[in-house]
Formats: sequence, C-alpha cells, structure tokens
Amino acid sequence: MTSTTAPEHLLAETIAAIAPACRTSAADAARAWDGKTKPRGSLGRLEPLAARYAAIRGGLDGPVRPAIVVAAGDHGVADEGVSAFPQAVTREMVANFARGGAAISVLARRLGAPLVVVDCGVVGPPLSHPAVRTRRIAERTHNLAHGPAMSRAQALAAIGHGIELAHQLADEGVTALALGEMGIANTTVAAALAAALTGADPEAVCGPGTGLDGRGVRTKAGVVARALEANAPDPADPLGVLAALGGFELAFLVGAMLGAGERRVAVLLDGFICSSAALVAVRLAPALGERLIAAHRSSEPGHRIVLDALGLEPLLELDMRLGEASGAAVALPLLSAAVALLEEMATFEEAGVSDSGR
Amino acid sequence: MTSTTAPEHLLAETIAAIAPACRTSAADAARAWDGKTKPRGSLGRLEPLAARYAAIRGGLDGPVRPAIVVAAGDHGVADEGVSAFPQAVTREMVANFARGGAAISVLARRLGAPLVVVDCGVVGPPLSHPAVRTRRIAERTHNLAHGPAMSRAQALAAIGHGIELAHQLADEGVTALALGEMGIANTTVAAALAAALTGADPEAVCGPGTGLDGRGVRTKAGVVARALEANAPDPADPLGVLAALGGFELAFLVGAMLGAGERRVAVLLDGFICSSAALVAVRLAPALGERLIAAHRSSEPGHRIVLDALGLEPLLELDMRLGEASGAAVALPLLSAAVALLEEMATFEEAGVSDSGR
Repeated sequence: MTSTTAPEHLLAETIAAIAPACRTSAADAARAWDGKTKPRGSLGRLEPLAARYAAIRGGLDGPVRPAIVVAAGDHGVADEGVSAFPQAVTREMVANFARGGAAISVLARRLGAPLVVVDCGVVGPPLSHPAVRTRRIAERTHNLAHGPAMSRAQALAAIGHGIELAHQLADEGVTALALGEMGIANTTVAAALAAALTGADPEAVCGPGTGLDGRGVRTKAGVVARALEANAPDPADPLGVLAALGGFELAFLVGAMLGAGERRVAVLLDGFICSSAALVAVRLAPALGERLIAAHRSSEPGHRIVLDALGLEPLLELDMRLGEASGAAVALPLLSAAVALLEEMATFEEAGVSDSGR
Repeated sequence: MTSTTAPEHLLAETIAAIAPACRTSAADAARAWDGKTKPRGSLGRLEPLAARYAAIRGGLDGPVRPAIVVAAGDHGVADEGVSAFPQAVTREMVANFARGGAAISVLARRLGAPLVVVDCGVVGPPLSHPAVRTRRIAERTHNLAHGPAMSRAQALAAIGHGIELAHQLADEGVTALALGEMGIANTTVAAALAAALTGADPEAVCGPGTGLDGRGVRTKAGVVARALEANAPDPADPLGVLAALGGFELAFLVGAMLGAGERRVAVLLDGFICSSAALVAVRLAPALGERLIAAHRSSEPGHRIVLDALGLEPLLELDMRLGEASGAAVALPLLSAAVALLEEMATFEEAGVSDSGR
C-alpha cells in the first residue's frame, strides 16, 4: 500500500468532481437561438459557442465574468539552447506583466479583466510585487533531455496550487478563465508533452517558438527525441508524463483547468503550450474536454496536432505565437458577445418580426 | 455640356479628396512593433492591422473610437421571391434595431459604440423613432430584373447622404466606422453588383442568403442573370452599375465609405452585401482600398469573390451571415486591441527585458 499525499488526494477529488457538461442547458440554448430575431444559424459559430458556455455553466447566468491567469516557470532544458531568448527573460517578463507593460497587461486592462500572474518557479529570488503570486516549486525544472524534469511530488504540488487558484477565482464569481504561460524554452516542453501523448514525431511538433531558424528547430526536435528516450514516458500515465517532460507552470495550468472544470468555470485555452497542458488535463479527466474552448490556433506547427487531439476547433487564426494568454484574451470578447447575444436579443414574438416559417 | 448637380459635385469632391494611406505612419508602426516586449511578429495579424490603422489615420492618435452604422432599404426585386423572409421584415427589423433587441443592438451596447440606424427607403411610412435617421430616397427601388433599380440621381442622392453622415461622425471624433445593412432581398442585389463588377458568373455569387434552399438559390441566380441582361451594366461606369443594380442602403454605404475615406476614418466592412458596396466605392475611388478593413468572411459564397477583388484578407471566419454590421462589430475589439497594444506596450528598453538579438 502506498500512502496518499494531500496534493494527490486533492487531485483525485477534483478529477472525480468534474461532471459532464449539461446537455439540457445546451439544448435550451440551441432552442433559444432559433427564436431570436435573425435567420436560423446566421450568427455562425457564435451560436454553438454560447451553447457550449451554457452547457459548462449548467445554464445561463448573466454576462461572462472573465479572469486571466499567466503562470510562469523556468526550465532546465533551456541549457540546450532551444530558445532565441536567454532564460533571464522569464523573470524579466514576469516583472513586465506586473508593471503593466506586456501585451497581456494591455489586453487585461482593455477587457477590464483581473490579471493573475503566478511565479511557479522562476530563476532568481522570488519577485516581490503585489501583482505576482508566489507558488514556487523550485527555481527551475531539471533538464528533461537527461531525465525527469520534476518529481511526481513536484508535479502534484504545482497542480494543487492551480486547483486552489481556480477555486478561489470561482468563489470570487469568475465564470471564464483565460489561461496562458511564460517560460523560456517551454515550446520544447510542450512539444515533448505533445509527442509523448499523441505519438506525433518530434519533428512534427517542433517549430520556431519565439524565433528559431531552421537549424534551431532541428536542434529542438533532437532535444525532444532525447527527452523521450531518456524518460520513456507512458501515455497511459498522464501525471507521469507531466512530471517527466513538463514544467512547473504547465503543471499549474493543468491544475487550474481541473479546478475550473470542477467549478463550472469555462476555460479559454491560449496557444500551443497551454493546449499541451490541456491535453494532460483531459487525459487525467476526460470529462474536462467539453469544458474547454480553444481561443485561437497559433502559427506553431504543433498546435494543430494538439487541438486535433483535443477535438477543438479554434475561434481565431491570426498567426499569433506570443503565449502569455494573449490569444485567449483576444478571443474573450467573442465569448462575451456570444453570451450577451443569446441572453439579450429579442425573439421574433417579442419584437413583432415576421419569421421565415422555416 | 451637362449641368452638375449638387450631389454629383459632392461625390466628385469627396473622391478627389481621398488621399493614399500614409506610408510613413505604417513604417513607423512596424518599427515600433519591433521594439515591443515580445518576439518579433508574434502578435501575428494584429501587427499589420494596427499599422494599417496608423496609415489610415496618418499616425496613432489614441484609442479607436468606433461608431456602427446600419443602413436599411427595400428592393423591388423582392417581388421575384428571392428571400426566405417577407419584405415587411426590413421595416420590422429597423424597429428592432431602434428598440435594442437586434443582434447589432446588443453588440453596440457591449462595445459602448454609438449605433446609427438609417432608413434609406423602406416600404411603409417613415419610422419615427429618435434612434432612426430618415434619409429616404423612395419607398423601395425598382425591380432590377426588369431594368434599372434606381436613377443615377437617386443613387447620387443616397451616396450624398452617406458622405454627410461620415463627415458628421468624423467631426464628432469617430475614428473607425463599422458598416452594415438591412434589406430583404439585398443578397440578390449584392450578387448582381459582384457579377457586374468582377465578371463572375451569377451562380458563383449567389448563395442561400437568409435561408434559401437549392432551388431558391437557382432562382436567385436566374434573377441576377436577367438583371445583367436587362441592364447591360458597364463595369467602367461604377455609378451606373450601382444605379442599375444597387439599392438605396448600398448606395448610402458607398457614400459613407467615401466620406470616411476622405476624413481618415477607418472602415470596417461587414459581410457580402457591405463588401459589394465597397467594391463600387473602390471602383469610384481606388485610393479608398487601403483604408478598408475586412472584418470577417461570411458563409455567403460570393463574399470570397468580392474580398478577393478588393484584395482584402478578413480577420474572422466564423460562418456568420447575418449582416446588420454584426460581423464588423464582432471584429471591432480586435482592431481596438491591436491599436492599444501598439500604443501601450513597453519596449525592451523601457521594461529592462533582454532582446533576442535578432
């Protein structure tokens, strides 16, 4: 018999508490759309989007109340030269998020959405800024090219922090979480997770990230191949895959997704890295799948593979590849608009508009 | 010698006053993007979008200040049974816009953008509602399947009203116009304009509109073919094409686009019908082309052909096909976000973030 740790218990409880999305609410939403003053189906993908949100929430309950979470972490695999930027940039960007100068800072302000920045383990002393939450597991992960990036216990601890944040935001009335990350070298981490969980070739899931050239991309694919060899991850054990190949910020996001799923909070996925974390989360808790919304498809080639594995069709395709929840934030107004339209549009009857009789 | 009418003079003056977009401002914007704290190009299409807006404005000048205009008109060609809805719906929907129950009403409220509804000629007595501007040319156009929908003078009058509204909104500080329309049977009108101006076959530009079945679409294509035969429009005379095949609300939109172009106001195009009006406007004033932004590509098949003719790549593709500026309104937050990012993001230097050296 093995003893159960507190984070392990929290994870198991959270997974068990994720209910399937509500079919009745989705059907009610579809019926409501058909009574609205517009040709049937003419709002296109906004209609199933609002229905999905209704299914996640278990019924409509007013405007979307979003929050944006950016989890940051550093990676031992940065030593392999897999990023166009030095590792110090993770820490510098966390400070930039906190001071309001980063893309996600600007977008959060525009949306009037709270921005939660989490230090999950960034090289250097903890950043003391009121806008940054410190949930550090270590300064950085081990180099996954040589062996496990984290211990199982570390992965569980980071997941636990993510679950707790989602619970807190749900308690504060948040109904949609836009999730993103920051971590130099974490497209390599995401590529390793994607390859391990989907069986895709390292070459298929490796792209330029923040700006590698063709040689750099080949180096990255080689690192991923070595990581798969060194760790021999078992796709049937998603927590083991996450511990071996993941990062603290990705594990935190896995937890945030699971916690959001448990509390009927819609999850807007950002790009490749965030979506790779979602793949881990869905392998842990399949019921979570229908509680996710893919905000956009980035230009990173692995993103398409991961979204296909998740069965998600993204809302936007704008060649964005920044991360830090920027794609999720840009898509948030679509979700808010879809829900407002479903809640506020007049019906044919209310407005005295003639229907087509179809 | 022919005498020049006042609207004819206004049109000629407006066309002459549309300057090419400002190359320097676009180059400044591109340079500014490259200094911002993000990998080069990683905001994808948001980067050229903000640069285009800067080029339209002749430099950045604060947040995007949008207004939404929906022009409504009725069409003689509705007698051919080319719509799934009865003609009375145009008037009913104008009332719905004004009372706040339509999709565009909800979207305008969410965006905090003024919504201007214009009665350009709708069957029945003028709608007296403070939210509706009355710029009626007649109750409806003639049936274009038998001959000209309007006289040249009527087309010029409607264009003149559109120019005047754009001037007024520019004077009020508006920097971006989201344009749309309402008019039962106006996908047939748009299809006729698109066929006449691009040379496309009627079958290629006719689709289900608000909900025709296959037989209905074939009927519509037949009506367009008859309209082209009856009017023999000359693509070298865009005003003549508009008069022969257009509608009052489309002519009004042509004017609004030209007036916006003159006053450096960015124009966000909605769907197929609005884009067909844009094609007329650009044929009248080629310099207008780089002052337009395609908000979305609708599921109406002719839209792709018209956008290709305009050389525009739409921002969104959400299978929307409602009209009434709904697609333009849904895309507005992308434009506002892109401009805010360019104006507000910190540079590498300001934020003390290490650059990649690329």
